[in-house]
Amino acid sequence: MLGSKAATDMCRIAAYTGPEIPLENIIVRPAHSLLEQSQHATEAKLAVNGDGFGISWYGADTAPGLYRDVLPAWADENLTNLCRMVHSRLFIAHIRASTVGETSRANCHPFKFGKWSFCHNGQIPHFKAIRRRMQAALPDHLFEVMQGTTDSEMIFYTLLANGLDADPVAAMHATLQQIGPDGTDGPIKLTCVFSDGQTLFAFRHASSGTAPSLYASGVLDNGGRALASEPLCGTAARWTAIPTDTICAMTVAGMNTLDAAVAA
Amino acid sequence: MLGSKAATDMCRIAAYTGPEIPLENIIVRPAHSLLEQSQHATEAKLAVNGDGFGISWYGADTAPGLYRDVLPAWADENLTNLCRMVHSRLFIAHIRASTVGETSRANCHPFKFGKWSFCHNGQIPHFKAIRRRMQAALPDHLFEVMQGTTDSEMIFYTLLANGLDADPVAAMHATLQQIGPDGTDGPIKLTCVFSDGQTLFAFRHASSGTAPSLYASGVLDNGGRALASEPLCGTAARWTAIPTDTICAMTVAGMNTLDAAVAA
Amino acid sequence: MLGSKAATDMCRIAAYTGPEIPLENIIVRPAHSLLEQSQHATEAKLAVNGDGFGISWYGADTAPGLYRDVLPAWADENLTNLCRMVHSRLFIAHIRASTVGETSRANCHPFKFGKWSFCHNGQIPHFKAIRRRMQAALPDHLFEVMQGTTDSEMIFYTLLANGLDADPVAAMHATLQQIGPDGTDGPIKLTCVFSDGQTLFAFRHASSGTAPSLYASGVLDNGGRALASEPLCGTAARWTAIPTDTICAMTVAGMNTLDAAVAA
Amino acid sequence: MLGSKAATDMCRIAAYTGPEIPLENIIVRPAHSLLEQSQHATEAKLAVNGDGFGISWYGADTAPGLYRDVLPAWADENLTNLCRMVHSRLFIAHIRASTVGETSRANCHPFKFGKWSFCHNGQIPHFKAIRRRMQAALPDHLFEVMQGTTDSEMIFYTLLANGLDADPVAAMHATLQQIGPDGTDGPIKLTCVFSDGQTLFAFRHASSGTAPSLYASGVLDNGGRALASEPLCGTAARWTAIPTDTICAMTVAGMNTLDAAVAA
Repeated sequence: MLGSKAATDMCRIAAYTGPEIPLENIIVRPAHSLLEQSQHATEAKLAVNGDGFGISWYGADTAPGLYRDVLPAWADENLTNLCRMVHSRLFIAHIRASTVGETSRANCHPFKFGKWSFCHNGQIPHFKAIRRRMQAALPDHLFEVMQGTTDSEMIFYTLLANGLDADPVAAMHATLQQIGPDGTDGPIKLTCVFSDGQTLFAFRHASSGTAPSLYASGVLDNGGRALASEPLCGTAARWTAIPTDTICAMTVAGMNTLDAAVAA
Repeated sequence: MLGSKAATDMCRIAAYTGPEIPLENIIVRPAHSLLEQSQHATEAKLAVNGDGFGISWYGADTAPGLYRDVLPAWADENLTNLCRMVHSRLFIAHIRASTVGETSRANCHPFKFGKWSFCHNGQIPHFKAIRRRMQAALPDHLFEVMQGTTDSEMIFYTLLANGLDADPVAAMHATLQQIGPDGTDGPIKLTCVFSDGQTLFAFRHASSGTAPSLYASGVLDNGGRALASEPLCGTAARWTAIPTDTICAMTVAGMNTLDAAVAA
Repeated sequence: MLGSKAATDMCRIAAYTGPEIPLENIIVRPAHSLLEQSQHATEAKLAVNGDGFGISWYGADTAPGLYRDVLPAWADENLTNLCRMVHSRLFIAHIRASTVGETSRANCHPFKFGKWSFCHNGQIPHFKAIRRRMQAALPDHLFEVMQGTTDSEMIFYTLLANGLDADPVAAMHATLQQIGPDGTDGPIKLTCVFSDGQTLFAFRHASSGTAPSLYASGVLDNGGRALASEPLCGTAARWTAIPTDTICAMTVAGMNTLDAAVAA
Repeated sequence: MLGSKAATDMCRIAAYTGPEIPLENIIVRPAHSLLEQSQHATEAKLAVNGDGFGISWYGADTAPGLYRDVLPAWADENLTNLCRMVHSRLFIAHIRASTVGETSRANCHPFKFGKWSFCHNGQIPHFKAIRRRMQAALPDHLFEVMQGTTDSEMIFYTLLANGLDADPVAAMHATLQQIGPDGTDGPIKLTCVFSDGQTLFAFRHASSGTAPSLYASGVLDNGGRALASEPLCGTAARWTAIPTDTICAMTVAGMNTLDAAVAA
C-alpha cells in the first residue's frame, strides 16, 4: 500500500514456561511488557506494532488455545480480560508489525497445527520467488490447512513437513536448505519461537547481518522462565541473547542448546 | 436501517454453575447448543442471531472475565478456541439479534461491573422516552462507565444503583418502578440472567403477553446446573420454565426463588 | 466449525448496468433488495446470509472499486452510506453465506484483478481434491495475487488464466474442463456474475440438479438492466431466469447469449 | 488500559474544498499525506495513529457520506479503494490516536448530523466532571442520536444545540462557555474542522499552551484549497497556520476569518 517502503516485518515476541500464571504477568504487567513494547519498542525498526497480534497457550489439552485478532493489541478489551483470567504453564504471544499487505487474522501469529504453535519475526525477502516451490513440497495434509499468504506460515508448515516432531534440529536444517540462499532483495532473517506444549524452542538466524533480537530470562521470581524480543523489566532475572544458528530448548528445568548446530 | 421492522431484540442466553467445565460443554457441544441456536433458533422471533455475542466467566478473581465481539458467533475461531480451553465454575453466554441500530462491542452482552455480570433478552419499547430520566438517576460512578446506548445496559446499571448487591428483589422491584408502565409502543419484556460470581440469578417479566423464554435444567450429568433460552439437548436433565415476576437463584446446591415476588 | 453440516454456500448476488444510479437503488431500496434478501431469502438454502459481503463498481478508472467486509451487511453503517453516496453505471454486489470455514475479507466476493471483478454462488464439492492441480496451473502473475482459500477465487483466476479477456466462452469451457467431473461429494454448482467494466456476464451451470438461481430484469424504470439471485421487487421489469450452460452478456443496450454453448 | 499514560488524544486531520477530485489526491498521494502521517507524524505527540479513522464527503445529497472504521488506516484495502474511486468537491478525513479507552466506530471522527460533519483534535481534560451537565443541556433530538462517549462528539452536539446553523461564531463562543475554565488536569485543547457541505470551518483554541497544529494551504495546483494538521508536501501551495480563537471559513473562492473573535 505504501509502496516505497521495504518489506520489513519487525514483530515482538514473548513466551513463558513455568508454574501456571495469568498471561498478563508477562504480556501486560512488566514495566517493559509486550503490550508496552507494541507502542514503544526500542529495539525494533518500526515504532508501530499495530497490525495484529496473537497468543497460543497450553493447558490440559494437547492442542494449544489460540487467540488472534487484527486490531492493535492496545485497543482490545478482550485481550486484557483474557490475559487476566487465563492461567497457563506455557504460552507464546506475538505482536505483528508489517508495512506491506493487508492485515488478516489468517496472517497473524502464532500459527498452530496439532500440538504445535509457532511464531516468527523476520523475513524471507525472496519469498515470492520460492513460494510455489515450497508450497508444492508440502504434503497434502499440510497444504490443505494453510490459510494465509505469509513466509512465516510457510516456514512453520515446512518445518512440520520436515519432521519437526521427531527432530527439530534436522527439520530446521532441511527448512533452511529449502529456503536456499538469499537473493538480491536482502538477507534472510528468521527469529522464531515454537512449542509442542512441553518445551519452548527458540532459533535465530540471519544469512548476513544481525538476526532479530531474542532474549532468554534466567529463573524468574516465580521459578519460571521467559523468552522475549526485548527484556521484560521488573521480572528479576538476567536476560541473555539467544545465540544464532542453534536451537535452544527451554523448559522449566532450564535451558540448553540442542546438540548440533543448524546451519553447517 | 430496515426501518419498517419493529424494534425487536430476540437473543439467546445460556448459563452454567457447577464443577469446572470447559465453556464449550454448554456453548458448543450440546445438540441444541447456544451456537446451534444462533443459526436455527426454534423459539425465537428471528431465525438470525448474528449481531454479536459475549461470554462472562468466573475464576479465581472476583471480577469475571469478559469476551465480546460483533462478528456472528459461528464465524469466530477465537470463540471456539476460548470455549475449548477456558474452564469455569460459573459462566453466562449471550448471542444477540437486533434488527435496529448498528452493532458495536459496547452494545454486546454480557455487561460487567465489579463482580457482577448481566445479560438481557427483551426490550423496553418506550426506552427513548425514559432514557434521559433513567440516566439522570444514576450515581456518578455508574454514569461514567456506561459505554453503550441500549436499554439492556441501562437496566443493569439501574439495578446496581438500586442496591443489587444488598437485595436483588428490592433492586429489581425499584428498577421496574423506574421503567414505569409500558407506553403505546408495546409491552415491556425483560428476561435476564446475572451473577455475582456465586449465584446465577434469573428473572422473567412481561408487562403483558409472554416474557422471552428461559429454562432451568435439573442436575446435569456432571452435577452442575444450567439456564438456557431453549433447552440444551444431550445434557440429561429435565428442563423447567423459569416462572415470571420472581427472582430465581441457582447455585450448584440447587435452585430456589427469592422470597418476595418482584412485581406487587 | 459445525462439522455435521454439508459444505453449502448459498449466497445472494445483485448487479446492474445502465445510467449512473446510487448503489442503494439496487442494494437497499427495492422491496426485495439484496439487503432484505440477506435476512429473509426465500429461494436460498440457508435463511442466514451473514458471512460477509462485497461490492465492485465501475467509474472513470478502468479498475473497479472494491468494498468487502466480514460483518453482516445489515449491521454496517459504512455500507449504507456508501450505497447512498456512490453512483455507478455498472456494479456487482454479493452477500455471502457459508457454514464452513472462517470468515475473512480475502474470502469475500467480489474478487478483482485488473479491470475484472467476479462473484460466485455455488460450490465445487471436490475442490479439496483438485485445488493443488488448479493452483499449479496458474501462471505466476495470478498465483502471486491470490489471497484466499475458496473455490470461488480459484475459478476466477483460472478463468483469467484461460483467456477471459479474449474469449469468455472458451475461458469458461476450459475452466469447467479443469474442474473436471464431480466426485462423490455432490454436484458442481456454479452461478457467477462478472464484468470487465463494459459488459455484465452471467453464467449458470450444474453438473446435475439445479444451478443456483439467477434472473435478468427487462428494462428498468430508469432504462438500466439488472441481474439478481431473486427478482428485486419494485423495479418495474419482468424477470427471466438466466439459462444454463451459456454465457449471457448484458449491456445497457440489451442482453444476448454468447454464440457457443459452454459445455459441449 | 495503560494507566500510567496521560489522556492524550493527538489525531491527524486533512480536509479539502475545490473542484471534484478523488479523495486519494489528499489522503494517500501527497508525499506527506494523511496516511503517511498516520505512521510517521512529525508534529504529533504520539508516533502511533492507529486507533481508527474516518472520512466525511459531500456530493449531490445534502447529507455527507461517512466512512469510519477502527482498523488502522494503513491496513484497510477498502479505504484505499474508496479514496481512489470516490470523487468529491468537499471532504474531511481524520486519523485517531488515543491511549485511553477502547476503540469503537462510534468514537471515530468525523461525526455527522444532518448536513454537518465535524472532527476534532485535542481534549477537554476535565470532561469527566462536566459530561453530565453538557449532556443534560442537549435538546432531545440531539441527546437521542449521540452514540459514543468522547468529549469530541459532545463538543459537536453542543455546537449544534448552540445554533451552529445560524451563527458558527456564537455557537463556538457559547460552547466554550459551557466547557468552562480548565481544571487541574491540564489545559483545554481544541482544534476542529467542520462543514455544512458548502464551507470548511476551522478553529483552534487552547486555554493555555499551544493548540494542536492546523494549516491552510494556498491555492493548490487544481484550484482547490486544503486544511491539514501538517502541510501535505507535493501540493504546490504555501501553507499558513490557522490563527487561534477565530473561526476561519474556507471555500473554493478563498479563506477568511469570521468577523468576531470567539473567545472574548
